[in-house]
Amino acid sequence: MSTGSPVGSHRVVSPAGALPQAADRLDPHPEIADDEVRVSVERLNLDAASYRQLRTKHDGDGDAVRAEVLAIIEARGKMQNPVTGSGGMLIGTVDAVGPQSPLGLKTGQKIATLVSLTLTPLRITDGLERWDGTSEQVPAAGTAILFGRSIAAPLPDDLPEELALAVFDVCGAPALVRRVVSRRYHSAPTVAVLGAAGKSGSLSLAAAKDARAAEVLAVVRDQDEADRVAKLRIADQIAVADATDPLGLADAVNEALRGRGADVTVVCVDVPGCEHGAILSTATGGTVVFFSMATSFPQAALGAEGLAADVEMLIGNGYTPGHADYALHLLDEHPGLRALFDDRVAGRH
Amino acid sequence: MSTGSPVGSHRVVSPAGALPQAADRLDPHPEIADDEVRVSVERLNLDAASYRQLRTKHDGDGDAVRAEVLAIIEARGKMQNPVTGSGGMLIGTVDAVGPQSPLGLKTGQKIATLVSLTLTPLRITDGLERWDGTSEQVPAAGTAILFGRSIAAPLPDDLPEELALAVFDVCGAPALVRRVVSRRYHSAPTVAVLGAAGKSGSLSLAAAKDARAAEVLAVVRDQDEADRVAKLRIADQIAVADATDPLGLADAVNEALRGRGADVTVVCVDVPGCEHGAILSTATGGTVVFFSMATSFPQAALGAEGLAADVEMLIGNGYTPGHADYALHLLDEHPGLRALFDDRVAGRH
Repeated sequence: MSTGSPVGSHRVVSPAGALPQAADRLDPHPEIADDEVRVSVERLNLDAASYRQLRTKHDGDGDAVRAEVLAIIEARGKMQNPVTGSGGMLIGTVDAVGPQSPLGLKTGQKIATLVSLTLTPLRITDGLERWDGTSEQVPAAGTAILFGRSIAAPLPDDLPEELALAVFDVCGAPALVRRVVSRRYHSAPTVAVLGAAGKSGSLSLAAAKDARAAEVLAVVRDQDEADRVAKLRIADQIAVADATDPLGLADAVNEALRGRGADVTVVCVDVPGCEHGAILSTATGGTVVFFSMATSFPQAALGAEGLAADVEMLIGNGYTPGHADYALHLLDEHPGLRALFDDRVAGRH
Repeated sequence: MSTGSPVGSHRVVSPAGALPQAADRLDPHPEIADDEVRVSVERLNLDAASYRQLRTKHDGDGDAVRAEVLAIIEARGKMQNPVTGSGGMLIGTVDAVGPQSPLGLKTGQKIATLVSLTLTPLRITDGLERWDGTSEQVPAAGTAILFGRSIAAPLPDDLPEELALAVFDVCGAPALVRRVVSRRYHSAPTVAVLGAAGKSGSLSLAAAKDARAAEVLAVVRDQDEADRVAKLRIADQIAVADATDPLGLADAVNEALRGRGADVTVVCVDVPGCEHGAILSTATGGTVVFFSMATSFPQAALGAEGLAADVEMLIGNGYTPGHADYALHLLDEHPGLRALFDDRVAGRH
C-alpha cells in the first residue's frame, strides 16, 4: 500500500492534473491506499436535478434510467450526471480503513458521505437490480472510496436515514452562522435569516439563537411560512417579505429592527436575485452570508459597490469542522425543528 | 424636479422593482432629479473581463467590438456586458448638480465615478467615433447620471487621467486586503496574491505589505510577469504557476511558504477556474478573497466543501470607505507601482 493524495488526485484517470470533481474518469478499484477508506455501499441518494434530467430524458422508463446510471458509473468511475454535472450522496458501512486515514472511521460503522458523489470513486456490483429506476433513492451494492480529505458522518441510531440525510445536506449553514455570530462583534449582533422556513434557513435561525445573537429575525415569503416558523419558537420576530424585491425587503428588515439593518444577514433563499436586498438589509460594517447556490458573484460584488455598502460578504462554505454533529445537536435541542424536518422528509410541505 | 431614490430605482425601466444594477434597462435621460448629478462624459474605462470577452468574441476586430458596445448602451441605457455582467467606470466633468445632492460635487469639477457602469444611466452622443475598439479605454461623449448614494472622486491634479482611472478601477482591492490582513489574525499572516502583476494584484501586494503581513508571496503566470513584479520591490517571494491548475498552484504556494498554505490568498486572476487552486493554496482557518469577476459562486462553495477546506471565502466588495485615497497613497509610496501603472496605461504590457 502507498499513501494517496489527500484530495484524491491519484485516482484521476483523465484528464491529467484535474481534481476528482472535475475529472472525466476516476479509478474506483477497491484496493485502498494507506490513507483511504473503503465503504460498502447500501444506498445512493441521487441529486434531485440529476434524477429529474434522467427521468425526463427516458420518459419515466425506470429500466432505461437504471441502465443509464449503471453506464455512467461504469464509464466514469463515479456517479456524475454528464448533463447536470451533479451527483448526490451515499449511505454505506465502513469496510476497510487505511492505517493513515485521518477520518477517524471504524470498520462496521454506518455512515453517510458528506462529499459529493461527483468526486467519490464508485464501483457497483449488483447491477442495481433492487432499484426500479423510479426514485432518487437507489438501493445498491458495491464499493466507494473516501480520501484523506473526504468527509463522512456516522448515521445516528435515533434518526431515520432520510431525515439524517436531509439534515446533513444543509449542515454547513448552521455551523458557519454560529461562527460568524460568535466572533465578529463587540456586542451581540442582530441576525436576519432570509428564507427561514426552509431546511438551511431554520437551522440557521437555531444556530443564531444558540450563538447568543441579540435578536433573531426570521424573514419568510408568506403567512403560511410565517406560521410554520412561529411553531419553531426560535425567532424573536418574523417578517413577511419578498427577498428578490430589494427595497421591500430592506424596509421590512429595518422596520423589524427599529430602523437599523441587521448586523448579520443570512441568505437561504434558493432563487436568483436576492443579493441586493440582502446587502441593503445589512447595517454598515455588518456581514452577509450567502448560502444559496443561486447567488451570483458579480451581482453581489458589484451590488455592494453600487450601493456604497460597507459590508463583508461571505461565500457559504459547505464545510466547517463539526458541522454534521452541530446540526444534529440543534435538532435535538429544538423539537419544533425536528418536526419541520419530519414534515419535509414526509413530503408534507 | 423631484427627488429620486438614493439608490436610483426611479431610473429603472425593467424589470419593475429592480435596483439599477440588476435592471435589464435604465432610463438615461439627461434631465436630473433634485438629488442627482449629471456628468458630461469624456471617457469610459471598460472592465477587463468585459473587454476581454468582447475582444475574444470578435476575434480582435475593433470595429465589431465598438459596434457591440454601442448596441449594449443603446439597448440597456448603461454599459453592462450581458455575458460577464460587468461594466467599468467613467471620467467626465460635472455638468449639473441637483440642489439635494449629498455628493458634494461642483459644476465644472473633473471626476471619476467609483460606482460601476453597470448601474450608471448612460447616453452616448458621438457614436464612440474616436475609439478604435482595441483598448479598454474608450474616448466618448454623452451624459451619465449619479444618484444620491453613488460614489465619485475628484481626479487628482498630479496624475494623468488614464492613470487615476486605472487606479480607481481596482481601488476596492487594496482597501479590503488591508482590512483583512490587519484584523484577522493573532500573529501577522502570510499573504499570497494570485495575478500579482496586474492592476488589482500589484496594489493588493502593496496593501498586504503596508498592513504588515508576515510574508508577501506574488504568484504570476510566467517569467515575464515575474520580472515585472520583481521591479516593484514589494513581494518577499515570487512564484510562477498557473492559477487554473489547482495542484500545480498549491504546490508552488506551499513550496514558497515552507510547506504551509497562505493565511490569506487574494485572487486577482481574471480568468475562470481559479477557485479550487486558491482554496487548496490556503491554510486551514485562512481566508480567500476573490476579486476576479470571473469567480463562480458554486465552484467556490462546492469546491471548498469537496476539499473539506475550512477556509473563509470573501466576495471582494468594491467599496470600502477611503478606498480611492488609499490606493493613491500606495502609488505615492511605491515608485515601482507607479511605473507599472504608467506602463499599463501606455499599453506597454
